[in-house]
Amino acid sequence: MNLTAVGIKNIRFPVKIREMAGGHQATVASITLQVNLPRRFRQNCVPTFLSVLKKFQNDISVEIFPELLREVKEELQAESAQLEMTFPYFIEKYAPITKTPGLMEYTCRFTGSTGHDGDDLIMSIWVPSTTLCPCSKEISDYGAHNQRAEINLNVKFRNFIWMEDLITMVEKSASCEVYSLLKRPDEKYVTEKAYENPMFVEDAVRKVAEAADNHPDILWFSAGVESFESIHKHSAYAEVLSDTMR
Amino acid sequence: MNLTAVGIKNIRFPVKIREMAGGHQATVASITLQVNLPRRFRQNCVPTFLSVLKKFQNDISVEIFPELLREVKEELQAESAQLEMTFPYFIEKYAPITKTPGLMEYTCRFTGSTGHDGDDLIMSIWVPSTTLCPCSKEISDYGAHNQRAEINLNVKFRNFIWMEDLITMVEKSASCEVYSLLKRPDEKYVTEKAYENPMFVEDAVRKVAEAADNHPDILWFSAGVESFESIHKHSAYAEVLSDTMR
Amino acid sequence: MNLTAVGIKNIRFPVKIREMAGGHQATVASITLQVNLPRRFRQNCVPTFLSVLKKFQNDISVEIFPELLREVKEELQAESAQLEMTFPYFIEKYAPITKTPGLMEYTCRFTGSTGHDGDDLIMSIWVPSTTLCPCSKEISDYGAHNQRAEINLNVKFRNFIWMEDLITMVEKSASCEVYSLLKRPDEKYVTEKAYENPMFVEDAVRKVAEAADNHPDILWFSAGVESFESIHKHSAYAEVLSDTMR
Amino acid sequence: MNLTAVGIKNIRFPVKIREMAGGHQATVASITLQVNLPRRFRQNCVPTFLSVLKKFQNDISVEIFPELLREVKEELQAESAQLEMTFPYFIEKYAPITKTPGLMEYTCRFTGSTGHDGDDLIMSIWVPSTTLCPCSKEISDYGAHNQRAEINLNVKFRNFIWMEDLITMVEKSASCEVYSLLKRPDEKYVTEKAYENPMFVEDAVRKVAEAADNHPDILWFSAGVESFESIHKHSAYAEVLSDTMR
Repeated sequence: MNLTAVGIKNIRFPVKIREMAGGHQATVASITLQVNLPRRFRQNCVPTFLSVLKKFQNDISVEIFPELLREVKEELQAESAQLEMTFPYFIEKYAPITKTPGLMEYTCRFTGSTGHDGDDLIMSIWVPSTTLCPCSKEISDYGAHNQRAEINLNVKFRNFIWMEDLITMVEKSASCEVYSLLKRPDEKYVTEKAYENPMFVEDAVRKVAEAADNHPDILWFSAGVESFESIHKHSAYAEVLSDTMR
Repeated sequence: MNLTAVGIKNIRFPVKIREMAGGHQATVASITLQVNLPRRFRQNCVPTFLSVLKKFQNDISVEIFPELLREVKEELQAESAQLEMTFPYFIEKYAPITKTPGLMEYTCRFTGSTGHDGDDLIMSIWVPSTTLCPCSKEISDYGAHNQRAEINLNVKFRNFIWMEDLITMVEKSASCEVYSLLKRPDEKYVTEKAYENPMFVEDAVRKVAEAADNHPDILWFSAGVESFESIHKHSAYAEVLSDTMR
Repeated sequence: MNLTAVGIKNIRFPVKIREMAGGHQATVASITLQVNLPRRFRQNCVPTFLSVLKKFQNDISVEIFPELLREVKEELQAESAQLEMTFPYFIEKYAPITKTPGLMEYTCRFTGSTGHDGDDLIMSIWVPSTTLCPCSKEISDYGAHNQRAEINLNVKFRNFIWMEDLITMVEKSASCEVYSLLKRPDEKYVTEKAYENPMFVEDAVRKVAEAADNHPDILWFSAGVESFESIHKHSAYAEVLSDTMR
Repeated sequence: MNLTAVGIKNIRFPVKIREMAGGHQATVASITLQVNLPRRFRQNCVPTFLSVLKKFQNDISVEIFPELLREVKEELQAESAQLEMTFPYFIEKYAPITKTPGLMEYTCRFTGSTGHDGDDLIMSIWVPSTTLCPCSKEISDYGAHNQRAEINLNVKFRNFIWMEDLITMVEKSASCEVYSLLKRPDEKYVTEKAYENPMFVEDAVRKVAEAADNHPDILWFSAGVESFESIHKHSAYAEVLSDTMR
């Protein structure tokens, strides 16, 4: 017997996400739901799902997400359910020298599943960063090619972790962090900082992995770094998978 | 010890794909390569990879793909390698009644991996189709909502299978097939055919699964159907995974 | 002398949009700014722009937008400026028969320019709809192919127009409207309604044009309808441009 | 009376493009067609269009394109027609020092229109490049942030121009060119070259404009440079429009 799942893809919904600083942040989520049903996924599954979603809409967090998922599963009388919620998330971040505040945008995702095999919950973040090529620096009399990169980290955790903390952890792993607002002293700082910290994509991804390995609350992770090479039209890419569930 | 893989993403390359009818078809592939190296993925890995790719460029098929992959692995002295090649593929298809020929475009992908755990090879296709809603037909005095859908099938196989055969198999699984050219008698045919064959996404995906189950050369498969609902802004989606490797 | 404009593309920012029903709606905008400067677009133009944006962030509407634009232009000492803000916008919409409420998502854009040639302001909306093919209906014994379509309308106006009113006007122009939530009696209604109102893309776009022509506050418009054909892999498309500025 | 145009969007078709070096290059085009018809754009317009396309399919160039367009217009008995063909185009390019050959991919587009107002033909190219920030270089003790950029140039011309020549002209306009294959001496060269040629997006776009202004066969142009900033999540952008038709 093959396993069949049915659901909906890419429904968009306004939600409020709980912030580490207290309060909530309004954003727009893209949602994918899949369920295993003893009977067909009837048309009225969508109204049922959306009414549960509406109930939770104004107070979403990775802590509350499993509750939302369980209620979806029960209301739909599903054997198992998988729910994925992806959204842009903004954090006020201070420029490194002038401390000018600016809003940085990160992509975040909660993925939860519940069913026969127990429950599972993954928190994912995508963080813009800078990589500067060690080889280019080493062989050149001056300069070094650098570029925007994107770091993805997916974690399963023991105790609750704030997205904000996860993002801060990841941002320290590349040649330099990315900011939305930089004045001249800040720009000097990030330029020199990247030059002092040359990293291949595999160096950056290993640093993310090391931080995740050392985090007391991370049980499992996978991470990837994609570097939009400034000297090529293709990307350099590296990924790492935690050896085992701790 | 965590596993780390490095590589390049989304490099584009012109290739020629072997056709079932004999001869080759020129197309443009998007390629992703990942390797596990005892040492770092040096800059010169890209020239090495591209020179192997160049050698195989004019005669690509799912039969030859493992050879290409093995040579990439050897030339890079990698412990393991994964190569993914995605490309648009055109097949001349005849309108159902007037038999007018027209070029249909399908997305295809070969994914190969080689390493400690042995070799693996997956052939994937994405096929445009039509689904017509059984519920809408049943409850309405006339008409029934229908829409474009996309069927994805991924297979591992025992003996060589032509993409053309796989595509033909999948095209029979929805409410109606999609064509690039339809004259009036053809349009009448596809309209009535879809109306006679109402299917939810889960019906279509189960029909694909049944065909794959019954295919003597398919060892494993996964399939998905996404329906771009004409009465909603979101998609309906269903997927199925073969129970086990045969 | 050639004209040169500089700016930033695709910066994302949380904003609150004034709703017709009163109150504000939180959403996430993608913003593009271009300015003509007597001198270079210095790095500190971005902080200046973002600080103006921050001031207006919590009360954006098409009425206020020109003020925001003027302040950006002045603060940057630009000769002229163009600002584009695109965002998802949600409206509670009732199912046609059961009146079940559901959130529909529309894409909206404000585009403003100010400079030597005076000021300009365009409001744009993208509205999901259903089209049902008249030819398919006519020649078939039963059924008719239909599909999701997207209607785009861009207007310049005399007096303030609510986006909500513009969206309602456009939604009446296709074979049937699209809803986020439909129960069985609703699904019967939309199926039959679409069947009773067959329309080619050019019929739908002309109906939009007629409504825009007759609107007392619309000075200029352009409109387009793209239909994601259920029987083909390509889209049918029609567009119309108002003859002249009234 | 408003002007209405109808057509098809995003149909994909394999074509062969005439190369400057002689011979043809096989690629896959995305095609958009719009026509003004005295009567409705009937279903059989698509077969007619595709049969004309098929006739020209194996020998496309910017020289032949107007012929293809005229034949489409005549066969469809249209008052006017607009045809757009976008495709990836590969050119063998030699690394700057080691002269290692590698295939570079560029996006190209032909846009033609024919009708009451006469004929028009635009050739467009999108060229990957590197920009290095002058400000970052000036204020930093070492290093300078740089990134991949994309240069777009659209031209109307007097005498035939090869895409290859246009691409070469544009590639000289940024801080450094982008290559698909670079060995160590090449990487040293591009790193140092970019560092020696710092450019804001407005500097690069003005250099493109200057070259276009000085080209004897270019009658009109527009150009844009988008820089995927390595220190930000947004892009810097500049564009220039030729003052007038010469």
